[in-house]
Amino acid sequence: MIETKGYAVKGQDSDFEVFNFERRDLGPQDILIDIQYAGICHSDIHQARNEWKNSIYPMVPGHEIVGRVTKVGSGVTKFKTGDIAGVGCFVDSCRKCDPCKQGFEQCCTVHCAFTYNGTEMDESTPTYGGYSTNIVVDEDYALQIASDENLAGVAPLLCAGITTYSPIRRFKVGPGQKVGVIGLGGLGHMAVKFAASMGANVTVFSTSPSKEADAKALGADDFVVTKDPANLKALTSAYDFIIDTVSAPHDLNMYLALLKLNGSMVLVGVPEDPAAVSAFSLISNNRILAGSGIGGIPETQEMLDYCAEHGIFSDVEVITMDRVPEAYERTIKSDVRYRFVIDMQSFSDQ
Amino acid sequence: MIETKGYAVKGQDSDFEVFNFERRDLGPQDILIDIQYAGICHSDIHQARNEWKNSIYPMVPGHEIVGRVTKVGSGVTKFKTGDIAGVGCFVDSCRKCDPCKQGFEQCCTVHCAFTYNGTEMDESTPTYGGYSTNIVVDEDYALQIASDENLAGVAPLLCAGITTYSPIRRFKVGPGQKVGVIGLGGLGHMAVKFAASMGANVTVFSTSPSKEADAKALGADDFVVTKDPANLKALTSAYDFIIDTVSAPHDLNMYLALLKLNGSMVLVGVPEDPAAVSAFSLISNNRILAGSGIGGIPETQEMLDYCAEHGIFSDVEVITMDRVPEAYERTIKSDVRYRFVIDMQSFSDQ
Repeated sequence: MIETKGYAVKGQDSDFEVFNFERRDLGPQDILIDIQYAGICHSDIHQARNEWKNSIYPMVPGHEIVGRVTKVGSGVTKFKTGDIAGVGCFVDSCRKCDPCKQGFEQCCTVHCAFTYNGTEMDESTPTYGGYSTNIVVDEDYALQIASDENLAGVAPLLCAGITTYSPIRRFKVGPGQKVGVIGLGGLGHMAVKFAASMGANVTVFSTSPSKEADAKALGADDFVVTKDPANLKALTSAYDFIIDTVSAPHDLNMYLALLKLNGSMVLVGVPEDPAAVSAFSLISNNRILAGSGIGGIPETQEMLDYCAEHGIFSDVEVITMDRVPEAYERTIKSDVRYRFVIDMQSFSDQ
Repeated sequence: MIETKGYAVKGQDSDFEVFNFERRDLGPQDILIDIQYAGICHSDIHQARNEWKNSIYPMVPGHEIVGRVTKVGSGVTKFKTGDIAGVGCFVDSCRKCDPCKQGFEQCCTVHCAFTYNGTEMDESTPTYGGYSTNIVVDEDYALQIASDENLAGVAPLLCAGITTYSPIRRFKVGPGQKVGVIGLGGLGHMAVKFAASMGANVTVFSTSPSKEADAKALGADDFVVTKDPANLKALTSAYDFIIDTVSAPHDLNMYLALLKLNGSMVLVGVPEDPAAVSAFSLISNNRILAGSGIGGIPETQEMLDYCAEHGIFSDVEVITMDRVPEAYERTIKSDVRYRFVIDMQSFSDQ
């Protein structure tokens, strides 16, 4: 077994503490990754605090993982020692069901082994995530990262990146389109970068007037403060596509009204309570309201390759492991531009 | 001007009465249609009773119109005297905006002249619908009907037909797919016929166990009584496409859960109040919830041609004009299989 040092919570009201555990020995298809950076996703906080009522403790969060391959199993072909590899939200799936065969492993109908707060395919061995010094993963569930440039800015691509890239691709965002991004946080800032890089005219909708300069620096053409609904009236039926990254409760009909004929709005944030959706909002202009969650391995690899080609990284604030609790508090207050990333060297050296 | 006898309500609490009015003289692009059949759509009832708070009185309802062309303007090329023609939910639009140019005249951004309870392009002259002896319409907004077979069964295609055909086409329903139809009424029975004719495996979801035999006769493979939600549990993630034709309040999340990866559910019924939609219902399996309303002229013509080719008609109960009030009451109670159609000869002869 492989000794690993993690940062864990042992119960929903517990503080983080150092947690020593073991990763499995490498099987023929496995690689060992020495973790360099792990991003902090808002869902880490929900799960560490059992807000989704499905937490398994002790929990080592983290599903935005980037590091260097230090060992490979005998049958590994995709990676060699020294490569940079990434791990996202899941580390295994059945590989045989329709979604798996279509490359949507995250929707596996048998069992998707989430990177943490989940179980391996035996449905009993707990998984531990990226707030740790290393991880063992089947090469089929690891992503190739072409360069070691700005790896801290690459880590959040494994969740925030793919979660926004996937629907933007699915709904064929491109040149000449008007695209709206609701909320400018970890997901929203990536959505702006992707949509702008694909040639769309991008508007950020935000409750915070202070974010206008940032929005434009990230690639947005317009910025609309949504506290006054009158600001939205003039934009009725103007947008081809809107991506809604907000998890706080908010009115969806107000934004659906902005979609033109056959336009689509995609939810990637998950408000706790259901939203009131008027059939009239959807029937007018034949609108679509869709949901989208992370992405499968093939599309995640495509996204990483796209980012490498276009020089797209997440904007991050790099922290040491001991600052995770503070980062959680600031993430809850949206006081981060735009993702905290843990420098794992700081933890290994402790 | 052209003398016309209509059946009108003069206020939201009024009974129907005979109403004599004039249609415009034919312009060069106009055709005069001697109306033979007019279907009764549930929206006729909502509007006759001002339930949508936008009623214009006197009101001659009716937007499922079929009849014989008796006169054509000097510039008309699509029709000649003696042809069978149809008129659906609208009789004019701007013809210049993006939706009009794309053949979605019903979403005209300038003004869609609805067939009744609307106004002509001057936005002041009221329009009068199909509960009448004749109608004058621009040939570009009339539909060609190839045969005079079962014209009573053709009339409802102009609204109930296109409203279900359009989303079924848009979402590419075809062989090998599992399709659900929620509600077996005027819209639902057409949805079953279309989806079955396109090779899909069709399930009807209904609160009425008594409709099972009908559903299967219409082409459904399966019938599920929805009063017990346990009946739906086994169908989780089983459907490619669901069309929801129900206007009464109902739980959408229960049906969204039935959609497989990238599956779509389309609302064509319009419940009065917004529905509670959980983001989780949509994000799981990357589901789509869409709305769809009627269809444009090109697609309506395509639908009529499709029906002619495949022998598809609406199942109707033909009534005389004086039975409209009774038909309204029975429509409200869903006591119709599956559409009332007024035989206009009965009215002309009075």
